[in-house]
Amino acid sequence: MQSILQQFQVTFRYPVHFTSGLFRTENTLLSNVLGQDGNQSVRKVFFIIDSGVAQHHPGLARQIREYAQVHAGVFTLCADPLVMPGGEACKNDPALVTQIGQAVNDYGIDRHSYIAAIGGGALLDMVGFAAAISHRGVRLIRIPTTVLAQNDSGVGVKNSVNAFNKKNFLGTFAPPFAVLNDSDFLTTLDDRDWRAGISEAIKVALIKDAAFFDRIRQDAPALAARDMPAMQYLIYRCAQMHLSHIAGGDPFEMGSSRPLDFGHWSAHKLEAITHYQIRHGEAVAIGMALDCVYANLAGMLPNDELQVILQVLETVGFPLYVPELSARNTVGELVLVQGLHEFREHLGGRLTIMLLERIGKGVEVHEVNPQLVEQAIGRLEKYSLKVV
Amino acid sequence: MQSILQQFQVTFRYPVHFTSGLFRTENTLLSNVLGQDGNQSVRKVFFIIDSGVAQHHPGLARQIREYAQVHAGVFTLCADPLVMPGGEACKNDPALVTQIGQAVNDYGIDRHSYIAAIGGGALLDMVGFAAAISHRGVRLIRIPTTVLAQNDSGVGVKNSVNAFNKKNFLGTFAPPFAVLNDSDFLTTLDDRDWRAGISEAIKVALIKDAAFFDRIRQDAPALAARDMPAMQYLIYRCAQMHLSHIAGGDPFEMGSSRPLDFGHWSAHKLEAITHYQIRHGEAVAIGMALDCVYANLAGMLPNDELQVILQVLETVGFPLYVPELSARNTVGELVLVQGLHEFREHLGGRLTIMLLERIGKGVEVHEVNPQLVEQAIGRLEKYSLKVV
Repeated sequence: MQSILQQFQVTFRYPVHFTSGLFRTENTLLSNVLGQDGNQSVRKVFFIIDSGVAQHHPGLARQIREYAQVHAGVFTLCADPLVMPGGEACKNDPALVTQIGQAVNDYGIDRHSYIAAIGGGALLDMVGFAAAISHRGVRLIRIPTTVLAQNDSGVGVKNSVNAFNKKNFLGTFAPPFAVLNDSDFLTTLDDRDWRAGISEAIKVALIKDAAFFDRIRQDAPALAARDMPAMQYLIYRCAQMHLSHIAGGDPFEMGSSRPLDFGHWSAHKLEAITHYQIRHGEAVAIGMALDCVYANLAGMLPNDELQVILQVLETVGFPLYVPELSARNTVGELVLVQGLHEFREHLGGRLTIMLLERIGKGVEVHEVNPQLVEQAIGRLEKYSLKVV
Repeated sequence: MQSILQQFQVTFRYPVHFTSGLFRTENTLLSNVLGQDGNQSVRKVFFIIDSGVAQHHPGLARQIREYAQVHAGVFTLCADPLVMPGGEACKNDPALVTQIGQAVNDYGIDRHSYIAAIGGGALLDMVGFAAAISHRGVRLIRIPTTVLAQNDSGVGVKNSVNAFNKKNFLGTFAPPFAVLNDSDFLTTLDDRDWRAGISEAIKVALIKDAAFFDRIRQDAPALAARDMPAMQYLIYRCAQMHLSHIAGGDPFEMGSSRPLDFGHWSAHKLEAITHYQIRHGEAVAIGMALDCVYANLAGMLPNDELQVILQVLETVGFPLYVPELSARNTVGELVLVQGLHEFREHLGGRLTIMLLERIGKGVEVHEVNPQLVEQAIGRLEKYSLKVV
């Protein structure tokens, strides 16, 4: 019998909105987003709030209840907002995923109902995973509260939790129903979180858009001083570039390459080595600095451009070296270099690493020289001690 | 700031092959399927075998090892084939999903490596779920061994496990890399499993293709007598219709309707009420008989066509009534009718039930009359006792 070739296309579509005061009753954004879904009846929404956000915004749950009352014709809360722990630790706790599944079951949340997750990238990842596997996907509204989540992780198509001591070991590709970026949440971030998200913008600028990098270079002092309009521009442009990269490429990463992962092979490993004491964005800043020094040593990135990049990272406030970069295993090898192997395995296929040819122009390589990595780490240590 | 509308299309493509003697070393099908994946290096494959299949095919693991040796240039076994329990029970045991994740971790199975699952629909569902969430999806080759899996569940885009006492509560939409249907596996099925898969073919014929139903009507005695060519035709045509329905409609079920679910609202519930003592296909046969009687009572399906349908189901060997259909809860309501609510919830959105206008022509309704369901159950009981 003849083989049957199955083939079909699926169209995915979701809006990313930018607002402030999302839960002020007169702000109709959320109500409109829900109201345009084609549902005939009043929608059920289940809110999950990152405990860090709940702490800084003690009135948030009350505000959501009031908002729901005013917009009762459009949606209803199927339960009181649930506060869950955020931060990377929440991705290590399978009980949280189960707890969300239990809520989906208990409250009758179906594929046309909503989970609205308010929090940082880790909480959004964890809740997103739980939502994606419940009934093969209940609708997810992401309300990212950190710079990193608003400009990068929260606007993309992935979710995940950690398992077997590997970051993002379990997860799915599952576009959200909508993303609502509220800049008010950024005001209560501590300085590290404010800063950490900037590195993904620097990343995308470095590999794709020299003009955007130049803007970040000019804005660097303002960003360090927590200027909101500078940050809003940075988030918007970074989110835009991230979204267009996803749409224009290989959204569900069926191929080998993920060119937006500049600085990430070492960042993932560094997060693990430091037991996530270093935030993802901080690790990416160090990872980019390392790969820029490496590229320079490998004869790719010119000296003057390397210096500009390192200066921008420092002006924004990133440390460029931590002792864990130089950690060695029992046989004297750099622990960091093992990250290359793990990075390839997670991507699948060939190792693909993004390096810089010059500012605004990334280039993929498929081999990394461990000796040169070691040398780059040494340079970075000296640079951060200002001895070079 | 202006909202960004993200939009992209993803193309999914996979072949469904029909063969016999899949692991005879001279059968190059599997080797070719793997060899055409664009990988540069030798692929890693991890086999998981349904314990029921392993029992009936004690030489299977050895055959797979030999096959891998002969085709060593194309792929390598990253571990010995793993035998796991099959049947609906495997979908109730989260430890099995974890065990597969552990193997993915231990054997370094990446997104360009393969899990090849050999078994019935339940095992394929469970393994498929584990594969889909590991590294956001390692490649899955399905080798269905039952009629039901070869003509329906194994060729589609879904996977799942049970949770919170709900069938398929957790799962994803994840097209396989390839499906390899080997008719040799059908020879060792017991009569119930041989028969059970026929109901999905009857289902698709009834709602979409009167000519196919007529062919099944003619072949019914041969099918009951385990005639292989009759079965191969039935599987091929049913798989083809199932695949074309998926491709032509709403593959990831973002809308409300799943028109191929004829007979399924009660079938799902009946499986649960009988604690899965009734096979899915047997439950679907009863569910179709019930919905046909209902449609007839509701003035839709003519008497003569109802009689032909019930006769075909009986000739193939299906019981059309089980006492659990009439089970009542503590307040005297039919337990089965609760299934309507659960069915709607799992689908999301409005209740959508497929009924028959006539043979080959399904029609969707959005309301079901519980009194008429009760009456239909009574008729079915009498019919099966041959008192009507």
